[in-house]
Amino acid sequence: MTSTEAVKSVLGVIHAKRNGQTVGNDDLATVVLDYTAGRIADYQMAALLATVACTGLTHAETVALTRAYVSSGSTLNLSTQGKRVVDKHSTGGVGDKVSLFVVPVVAACGVPVAKLSGQGLDFMGGTIDKLSSISGLRMDLGTDEVVDVLTRTGMVVSGQSDDLVPGDRATYALRDVTGTVDSLPLIAASIMSKKIAIGTQGVVLDVKYGPGAVIGSVEEARELAVLMLRIGHEVGLPARAVLSDMRQPLGYAVGNSLEVAEALRALRGEWIPRYSELCETIARLMLQLGRPELDVAAATVQVKEAIASGRALAKFREWAEEQGGDVSQIDDPSTLPSAPHAATVRATHDGWVAGIDARTIGSAAARLGAGRFSYEQQIDHGAGLVLGRQVGERVQAGDVLAELYGSAENLESIVVTVASAFHVEDHEPDLEPVVSAILGGGWPDGDAEQGDESENDGSGNPSPWW
Amino acid sequence: MTSTEAVKSVLGVIHAKRNGQTVGNDDLATVVLDYTAGRIADYQMAALLATVACTGLTHAETVALTRAYVSSGSTLNLSTQGKRVVDKHSTGGVGDKVSLFVVPVVAACGVPVAKLSGQGLDFMGGTIDKLSSISGLRMDLGTDEVVDVLTRTGMVVSGQSDDLVPGDRATYALRDVTGTVDSLPLIAASIMSKKIAIGTQGVVLDVKYGPGAVIGSVEEARELAVLMLRIGHEVGLPARAVLSDMRQPLGYAVGNSLEVAEALRALRGEWIPRYSELCETIARLMLQLGRPELDVAAATVQVKEAIASGRALAKFREWAEEQGGDVSQIDDPSTLPSAPHAATVRATHDGWVAGIDARTIGSAAARLGAGRFSYEQQIDHGAGLVLGRQVGERVQAGDVLAELYGSAENLESIVVTVASAFHVEDHEPDLEPVVSAILGGGWPDGDAEQGDESENDGSGNPSPWW
Repeated sequence: MTSTEAVKSVLGVIHAKRNGQTVGNDDLATVVLDYTAGRIADYQMAALLATVACTGLTHAETVALTRAYVSSGSTLNLSTQGKRVVDKHSTGGVGDKVSLFVVPVVAACGVPVAKLSGQGLDFMGGTIDKLSSISGLRMDLGTDEVVDVLTRTGMVVSGQSDDLVPGDRATYALRDVTGTVDSLPLIAASIMSKKIAIGTQGVVLDVKYGPGAVIGSVEEARELAVLMLRIGHEVGLPARAVLSDMRQPLGYAVGNSLEVAEALRALRGEWIPRYSELCETIARLMLQLGRPELDVAAATVQVKEAIASGRALAKFREWAEEQGGDVSQIDDPSTLPSAPHAATVRATHDGWVAGIDARTIGSAAARLGAGRFSYEQQIDHGAGLVLGRQVGERVQAGDVLAELYGSAENLESIVVTVASAFHVEDHEPDLEPVVSAILGGGWPDGDAEQGDESENDGSGNPSPWW
Repeated sequence: MTSTEAVKSVLGVIHAKRNGQTVGNDDLATVVLDYTAGRIADYQMAALLATVACTGLTHAETVALTRAYVSSGSTLNLSTQGKRVVDKHSTGGVGDKVSLFVVPVVAACGVPVAKLSGQGLDFMGGTIDKLSSISGLRMDLGTDEVVDVLTRTGMVVSGQSDDLVPGDRATYALRDVTGTVDSLPLIAASIMSKKIAIGTQGVVLDVKYGPGAVIGSVEEARELAVLMLRIGHEVGLPARAVLSDMRQPLGYAVGNSLEVAEALRALRGEWIPRYSELCETIARLMLQLGRPELDVAAATVQVKEAIASGRALAKFREWAEEQGGDVSQIDDPSTLPSAPHAATVRATHDGWVAGIDARTIGSAAARLGAGRFSYEQQIDHGAGLVLGRQVGERVQAGDVLAELYGSAENLESIVVTVASAFHVEDHEPDLEPVVSAILGGGWPDGDAEQGDESENDGSGNPSPWW
């Protein structure tokens, strides 16, 4: 049942935002708490979200919204772990299996990692969906279990529990189905509230841009990264941000169990171009947040050593078993769920792969069954596709560009679509690095590879530390 | 159940509008039909409405939305009546009982009137709520009954039937509870779609402005009027618009049965300042739309004669009986529902009433029980208040400014609020007419009291005919 006072309050905020007024901290907190408690309806919150998506939020409003999300539920206290617990977050991208790799790597280096994730939608899979490919692996831990697993194994990955940031949880689900996902302040508040509530002592933000990500341009990605770093700064959560290029899918595999298998290959030491590079950078940054005494070189060495030694893979296995997963699937990834081979897309002429439209590939994978278009929809864990090439690689006519798995009503149109996603040219293309920037290096207790520690000068302009 | 294709379609429209793109006619029609059919959820439509409230609609989009509403349901065919059937619409205001007066007056002049209305919300009552004060009066006629009653009595007033513009009906209910009522293109499309679907051959639009109306300023009222007149012009529905001042409540009574009683006094020939004047203007314009051969003077005389002769009151009584109403309440309005007398607000000093904040009065009436804040809420038909003075009238300390009826938890605060709505000054205030403009007079078959018949010149600027 909605309540009259709550409804008047949210309608007031909607009108204020639409009329260009600033909304007080208390007003935003009230709306979030009212929505969480069911005192205002989905459609009212949807109207507010759509309004904010049009008008934006001031920084103060964004911080207020973040705090409101945090205070809508309980928070974890991970400071009892004795070590700094760290976290990472990705804004999402096609083929983004970074967490599957970096979390065990960092944990294997002795820095505990707590990662609570949401579900994916549309063209991007979520970490929870991917890990759910492993039989029995529980992704619905309660708060106490999260702490227990973390204490025992040094890492924990789970779906966001109902206790934490219920305000964000409810809002996030609604944003997905109301076309209000791509609002930077809403993204920033959503992400940072989770990170704050989880109670880690450091977070690395993987802000992805390009057609295969929520954020289209590197400029927007930087803006979002800065928004989140500012929130972290304000609430005292050390954070780093990586801007990573998602013009092509990350790695070769797109689809849940296919991506788990690829992550396991990387954990076994195989170098997956761009994917391994991005993971090592993020793992290194996480490690430094947990152990600030490490410089770049020392942290990088530890990361590489954790992989090469097999300790990272062993950590993944140990953790999966702790959460009920069938470790035989980790030992033999060919036993992971698989969907029928549906089609092969081959190159029609020789050349270099100059571009692979990541969003097209992601949509194709979703249509094959790897993604969902509504929360009720079931996904096919084995569905998806495996690319035969990345951008910059040579290809000859007849070479495999992609193998498709799964079932779909319009398979032929998917094949045509996937083929159209590949741009093969007769000269070697320019290549851009997967990591285009690392931001937030000016934190007092981190190294200062970029920027400095100076604060916002009060002019309202971004301060130079990022 | 929502459908994947429909959801993708509405999300596409939301993104397009937010990114400043123009949306195709078919896309808007699809969304409206999908929403009507339940293929997209309330929260998705709410997000679209909120987005449109922020970004606006082009004129072509507004017309497309109007046509989509019309085509979402059935339409009436009133051309078989042999005469031009006319209609009026008010954008809503505190104390707006115009329909109760003008519909029987125009019908008594021999021009049939079909009026299908929605419910009121918040600080403004709706015609249906007001008429529902009369015992037994059916406000839920089916399409066939509407035609029947109209044929028999020359007038019909009913709630909007489920058959007509279900797309608008659903959207309108949602707008009320999502803070998206005050979007001009949404208002224009909603109103005009109803008028088109009802199939009348002329409509007078009472566009109200000021604190006691949805539209705040006369400029916005003019913009809305022009939007609606343009739609009417495009679809071939002759229309006139009156801009009327709602800085103070209209008449003395605010509240359902209280307003019915006041309308009956006016029908009996009592001159209610501003209310009677506005009603006579609107009735005259309706009469001219129905009988274009009448000039202003002739139409005005007929209107006054219909009232003075008692034919308008008799028409009201005849019609009410036809729709099941207890006519003894019309004959003796003291038998209409009444709420307990709650309080009297008196002047604290001598002077002139320089202002009466209409919104404050409307809110007070709603809090006394006359209005609803959600569609589930029951109203108290007898609740509301009766003003002792209008703006420009003299007052002495101790004179009654308002009598309050009904029940409320915080009666004392309502009394204080009502008192604060009255501004008494020591000099006579300037007065402004209740009708500040009459627009749309350039219609080919109407008289040309304002503007001319020239068309939009293609520059995108408003054409001069209004």
